[in-house]
This record gives sequence, structure tokens and C-alpha cells, in this order.
Amino acid sequence: MTAADAAIQYARDHRDQFLSDFKELVRIPSISTLPERQGDMQRAAEWVAGQLTKLGFDPVQIVPTEKHPIVFGEYRHAPKGAPTILFYGHYDVQPVDPVELWKSDPFEPTVRGDDLFARGASDMKGQVIAHMKAVEAMVRTEGLPVNLKYLIEGEEEIGSPNIGKFVGDYKAKLASDFCLNADTNILAPDIPAITYGLRGLAYYEIRVQGAAADLHSGSFGGAVDNPAMVLSQVLGGMRDADGRITLPGYYDRVRPLTDEERAEMAKLPQDDAWWMKASGTKVLFGEEGFTATERATARPTLEINGLLSGFTGVGSKTVLPARAMAKISMRLVPDQTPQDARRALDAYLKKAMPPTVTWEVEDLAGCTPAIVRRDSPAVKAARQALEKVWGRAPLFSRQGGSVPVVSLIQDMLGLDSLMLGFGLPDDNLHAPNEKQHLPNFFRGIEAYIWFSHMVAA
Amino acid sequence: MTAADAAIQYARDHRDQFLSDFKELVRIPSISTLPERQGDMQRAAEWVAGQLTKLGFDPVQIVPTEKHPIVFGEYRHAPKGAPTILFYGHYDVQPVDPVELWKSDPFEPTVRGDDLFARGASDMKGQVIAHMKAVEAMVRTEGLPVNLKYLIEGEEEIGSPNIGKFVGDYKAKLASDFCLNADTNILAPDIPAITYGLRGLAYYEIRVQGAAADLHSGSFGGAVDNPAMVLSQVLGGMRDADGRITLPGYYDRVRPLTDEERAEMAKLPQDDAWWMKASGTKVLFGEEGFTATERATARPTLEINGLLSGFTGVGSKTVLPARAMAKISMRLVPDQTPQDARRALDAYLKKAMPPTVTWEVEDLAGCTPAIVRRDSPAVKAARQALEKVWGRAPLFSRQGGSVPVVSLIQDMLGLDSLMLGFGLPDDNLHAPNEKQHLPNFFRGIEAYIWFSHMVAA
Repeated sequence: MTAADAAIQYARDHRDQFLSDFKELVRIPSISTLPERQGDMQRAAEWVAGQLTKLGFDPVQIVPTEKHPIVFGEYRHAPKGAPTILFYGHYDVQPVDPVELWKSDPFEPTVRGDDLFARGASDMKGQVIAHMKAVEAMVRTEGLPVNLKYLIEGEEEIGSPNIGKFVGDYKAKLASDFCLNADTNILAPDIPAITYGLRGLAYYEIRVQGAAADLHSGSFGGAVDNPAMVLSQVLGGMRDADGRITLPGYYDRVRPLTDEERAEMAKLPQDDAWWMKASGTKVLFGEEGFTATERATARPTLEINGLLSGFTGVGSKTVLPARAMAKISMRLVPDQTPQDARRALDAYLKKAMPPTVTWEVEDLAGCTPAIVRRDSPAVKAARQALEKVWGRAPLFSRQGGSVPVVSLIQDMLGLDSLMLGFGLPDDNLHAPNEKQHLPNFFRGIEAYIWFSHMVAA
Repeated sequence: MTAADAAIQYARDHRDQFLSDFKELVRIPSISTLPERQGDMQRAAEWVAGQLTKLGFDPVQIVPTEKHPIVFGEYRHAPKGAPTILFYGHYDVQPVDPVELWKSDPFEPTVRGDDLFARGASDMKGQVIAHMKAVEAMVRTEGLPVNLKYLIEGEEEIGSPNIGKFVGDYKAKLASDFCLNADTNILAPDIPAITYGLRGLAYYEIRVQGAAADLHSGSFGGAVDNPAMVLSQVLGGMRDADGRITLPGYYDRVRPLTDEERAEMAKLPQDDAWWMKASGTKVLFGEEGFTATERATARPTLEINGLLSGFTGVGSKTVLPARAMAKISMRLVPDQTPQDARRALDAYLKKAMPPTVTWEVEDLAGCTPAIVRRDSPAVKAARQALEKVWGRAPLFSRQGGSVPVVSLIQDMLGLDSLMLGFGLPDDNLHAPNEKQHLPNFFRGIEAYIWFSHMVAA
């Protein structure tokens, strides 16, 4: 019996206890955005720190920030030459509104069928617990073959405002070989997957001003320009009929998809029918020449996220608006940067905006895209571990979304992040009836055990 | 001394009394939109009816409607063959918010310099009083040379929801030669003017739906279409670079401006500098080949009045909106109709909307444009009357706005409306510190006296 086998056996023998600890953590309503949950936030941080202490992490620190504390812990008992992994997770959760749509109390974890229903079950207390239980299984049997550093924050759901300062302050202590980010999912219960790419983000607000104040559209319509019309024309011109973004130079630094990548992507269970069902649309649309999966994960986009001008209430008001506003965002792919996006946007706007309006652009959010080499030791180990547990090779997928902490860890610590977590796409994240698929949770624990051994080998 | 001279003398001798009656009416806070002013609405209607009774109108009726009563009165003592005029006015006023911006109590009329400040002073109690005082001056001297029917409603500021039913019920009683609508202004204290045209209106809400619900722009951006982008492109395509509306057939029924009309318009004090100042813009814009005044009063337009989609709060939310909405309106000129506008819009949308969205259009408001022949007896009499009082020929102007009651009286009674009132463009209608220029008020009374005699001649 190998060390890994012993740990697996421990994990199988302690499933009831693991589930009980999982329930204990999700019972704490650690909603980071609600000021009245301050005490619960502290409680959740202490709960996580307590578990790490029990596992032998040393030191274990609850580091205060301007808002919610970060739990930091180190476990350095691996054999010489073993890799050091920075494990990233968060203990905060989203609010539960509309609470009346929950079938059971969001903070009273309830098992129905294969699923545990609770706020945070999948995003991401379940993933944090799964990894801690894998650590427990190894620590309680033949030991942990890797060194670990834990960074569990309490502000992911509010945009991680204070993690940058922490990472700066703890830069030396966080030094590792790579980051394991568990805040992700696989594709289906029977389809293991590794996320090797994330899109970046560049988010802007564009404000257009015409007249000094709203005018009567009867008195002034025809004499002066309408900023809502200007904005519509300017925004409309950002995308051509083939779905390509027209901002000058926008595609210059886009890394082309290799044939091999496209072949891998074609194996994913996300065909057109899947995308139509998942999005609730009857017709898909996007850049000519790419599949929906490629377009949504490995090609850059430009979306209008918000539009506001003039009168938007019930009925009619004959206003010629003085102002119009759009929020737009681009999803970036390697090797685009938010700075590239801003340059392309500015170049476009300078040409497109007419002299009849004034305008300004505000930078609201941004992060660089991320990609991990699929032949890196961490990815190889993850592939082997998933195959071991699921009995089939994992698929490689890129995600369309952005995980700012991955960019931050890349930029500040120079570490790639391996995305390995065991949620599912239909776990109702941020929505009523969030759940964690329990067979996945237990398979995840085993996968983390195998992964630790394989990456150390 | 002619009959007109005698009435003019009476009017000059009774200015103090006229002003005092004017103040009495504006003291009644007859805000039609506020339910708590129901009693004041009734009081204002009774005040108007009482004045008519004192002047010898018979019958004088306060006709209940579903909301605020309409005052109807007849005066039929003119010599045989005299014309019958339907006088239109309203006794209701706008709300006074923000009340803290008023320099004096909106319902305690206050004279500062040449102006009487009070809510309703110009819009339009001052105009109703001016005409009633002209009638008084004639009735108390050598008699009224015309027959009069008064229609004074209490719902103009809330869109006249009940006047249509009243006009239908009173169709026979309202039969007249033409309508005198006093709900208008001249161009400046020393520039008399007659409004001979009004634009019509066709107001729509366009709703576009993409996915069934809002999606995450990271997960789905690139795979499905964005209804806010579709709407921007569709709206943006409605106007070309020369400011012309592109809806198919939109200009087909537009009556061209004659050279004579354009020459008259060129005399108006509304040059580019005036439009820039009035609108608070540094650059004007509109249909190529027309002056700003022509564009804003005698050419049709299409404006976006409102835009709404996705997230419009502070900060960023990475939503791919499911819905986008625009309110758009067209100002119509003779001989366009709202039905023509709807046909042109539908034809355009059917071509422009892509199959990736569903969409619908709601009809929110509409009225036909109006134009009065400048050589009609009523317009001729008005021109003579204004020249008599001001010592200079009036200018002829068209207004960019719409006065739905003019369309209604045209459509239901077949009567042209002469727009003759004595407000000013800067009277702060619907705004704090509304005022009536008093020299204009007194000149208006004399103009109504002369007009009555000249139209009867």
C-alpha cells in the first residue's frame, strides 16, 4: 500500500466526518458584503484557522485587513526537494436574496439526492474543505509529500479589495512553485477537466455629453445633436457584421489557437446545443470562423454591459437627453493586456466621436488574461490525478471568465495558477439553491491526494 | 371713438383691477397631477366659471370628467353674421418642485421689475385672464363683436386624458369658425409673432430581448448576441451622417418649405448663436441643407429619448444583458401622420433587427402636425391686431413642439387653431420662478380686443 493509497483509504473511512465538517463551515453565514455579518466573517476565518492548526500548520495567522481578515498558514514538513504549493481559496460567500426562492435555509445545509444545498457549498467552501480534508488524510497517514502555503481570503465576493496589499506585505512568505486555485469547476460529474486558461478583463464607462441640460425634444429636436444617438452610433460601430471588434489593433496581440488546442476544445461537451440551452437562446452569435466554445473562452470580445440615457420610466417624456452613458467591457485573451485594450478604445473613440459632443472614459476594472502551459509539471500531475480518480483522461478547457486573483498572483508573485476545483457548471453559484455535488466532493478529495503525490514525484 | 378704442380705453383704465384678478387666480394652487389638490382644482374651475357668468356668458357649465372638470361657456350676443370663436385654455398648472429654488412663494404672486412671478403666471392663467379681460373690456363698453365659446380644461399638464370624450359629447355645441388657442408665446417683448405651424409626434418604446435572463459576460460573452449592441446598431442606423432619417419613405409626405416661408423664417431672431445659447451647446447639428430654425420647427426628426440596458449603477458588473430598451420619438411635420411614422419604423426594424433577438414596439403617444394657412381670415386679423398694438408687423413662426389639443380639435371638430398667446420663451414654464411679463400681458389684452374687432370686420 503506497502512501497515497493509505491516505485514500483514510479519506474513504472518514466521509461522514468530512461531510459533518463541511456542514459546520457552511452554517456560518459569512456574507462579506453585509456589514452585519462582520462577526460571522471573523468566525469563519477562525474556523478555517482552527482546522489548519489542528492539521499542524505553523504558523497559522488571521491577518487583519481594512475589511475582512485573511487566513494564512504554512505546512513545511515535506521531504527536501519537494515542491511548495500556494493554495488559494476564500471563505466568504454571496448574499442569499431572493431568499424566498430557496427550497431550504441557505445556512442550514441540506442533502437532497446527491447534492448538499447551502450558500457557499460550491463557491467555494466545498472546495476549501475538500483540499483541507485531502491534507488531513495525508497528514494522518504517511504525511504530506509537498509543502503548502494557504491563503484563504474573505473578500473574493466583493472584488478582493485588500488582497493586493496582503500579497505585497507577504511576498517573501508566499514564495512557492505554483499556485493551486480551487475556485473552479469540472464540466460534468463524469467529465474531469483542467482549466488552463482564463480571459482577462478591461471594463470602462463611457460618458457622452451634448447640451448643458436636458432639453425639450419638441423645442430643440433637429437643432442640436442627441448624445444617445451619438453613443448608439459609436457603440454600434465597435462590432462589424461578422462579429469582429473594430477597435484599431484590437487583435494584434491575440495568441492564435493552435490546431491541437482546437482539437482538444472540440472534445468538450459544449456543442452549439449546449450553449443554446445554457444561455437560453435559440440562435448563437459571434465572431465568424470560430465555434461558440472558442469564441466564449479563447477569443476576445467586447460587450455592452449597461446603457442609460434620458427617460426610462413608464410612458413617454419628450426629452432630448443631455447625457448618455454606456458600460462596456472586453474579455481579453493572451497576450492582450488591459492597457492594449484601452489604447485600442481610445484610438477608436477619437475618430468616432463627433464634435457635437464631449466625452470621457473611466477605467472601472481590469485584469490580464492567464494561461498555463499544458506540459508544466503541475498540469501533468493534475491530469494524472484526475485520470486516476475518474478512470478517464481529463479534458482541457479554457474559461471565458476572469479570476482577478490569478492575474494578481501572476503579476505580483510570478506564479502560474493551476485551476483545480470540483464544482459543476449548474451549481447555482450566486443564485438561490446553491449546491455541491457530493460524489464530486469526495472524488475531489481523492484527486487532491493523488495530485499531491504526483506533483511531488 | 370706435368700439375698439372704447374697449382699449376701458382696459387701460382697469389695469389695477385686471392685475388683481390675475393674482387671485394664480393664488389657487391648481396642480392637476397632485391628488391632494382636488379641492383647489374645483375652486379654480369655479373661479373661471364665475368670471364667465359675470361677463354674461350663458350657459356656463362646470362639466365633470373622470378627473378634473372642464369649464364650458357660451357668449352669443354678437351681430348676425359675426364669426364664432372657440377659445381654448387650461386652468391647471405644473407642480412646483424643487420649491426651494423659487425666490418667492409660487402661489403668492409677486411683482419684481416687469414680471409677475407665480406658478401658472405664463402657463397659462395669464393668457386666460388676458383674454377674459379683453372680453370684459368689450362687454362693458360697446359689446363683443364675435360669438365666443370657452373651453377651459383642468388636465392639460397631465396630458388631457379626458378632453377627447368631452369634445365628442359637446361636438355640436363646440361648432365654431376656428379655434383660438392662447397656450403659446411671442418671441420677445418687442417682437410680436404668430405661430402658424406645430409639429406632430410619434413616440415609441422599442424592446429587444436576447437570452432568457441576464448572463455572465465572462461565461457567455462571444457565444451569444448582446441585445444592447443590437439595439445600438439598429438605433444608430436610423440617422445618416448628414442628419437625415433613414427609415424607408420617412420623408415621402413632408410638405416642402416654400421660398417665401424660408424667407420669413430667416427674419426670426433665432440665428445659430440664439440656438447655441438657448440649448447650451457649442456646436449645432442637424439635417444638411436647412437652418437650425427650419430643422427644429419645420423638418421632421427622430430622437432617442431614453436608453436602458443591463447594469447602470456605480462601478462594474459583468453582465451580458438579456434586454435592452429605447424610447424614441419623431417630430412630424405636415403632411406626415403618426401612422406614416409607424409604417416607416416597422419597415426599417423588420430589415435591421437580426435573428439573434426578439423585439417589440409599443406605441406610447402620437398626434398629427398642424398648420394654419397664413392667408386665412383669422391669421390676417391676428396680424393686423399685433401690428396695431406693437407698431410692427408680427413674424410668422412654426413651433417645434406639439400641442395635442390642436390636433384633437382639428381631427374631431375640423377646426384650425390660431395660436395666439403672450408668454415669452424665457418664462420658466414647468420650472422654478415661472413669470409673466406684465407689459406683454397688458399688450395681449389690447391685442385680443383688436383681434376680435378685426376678425369680425
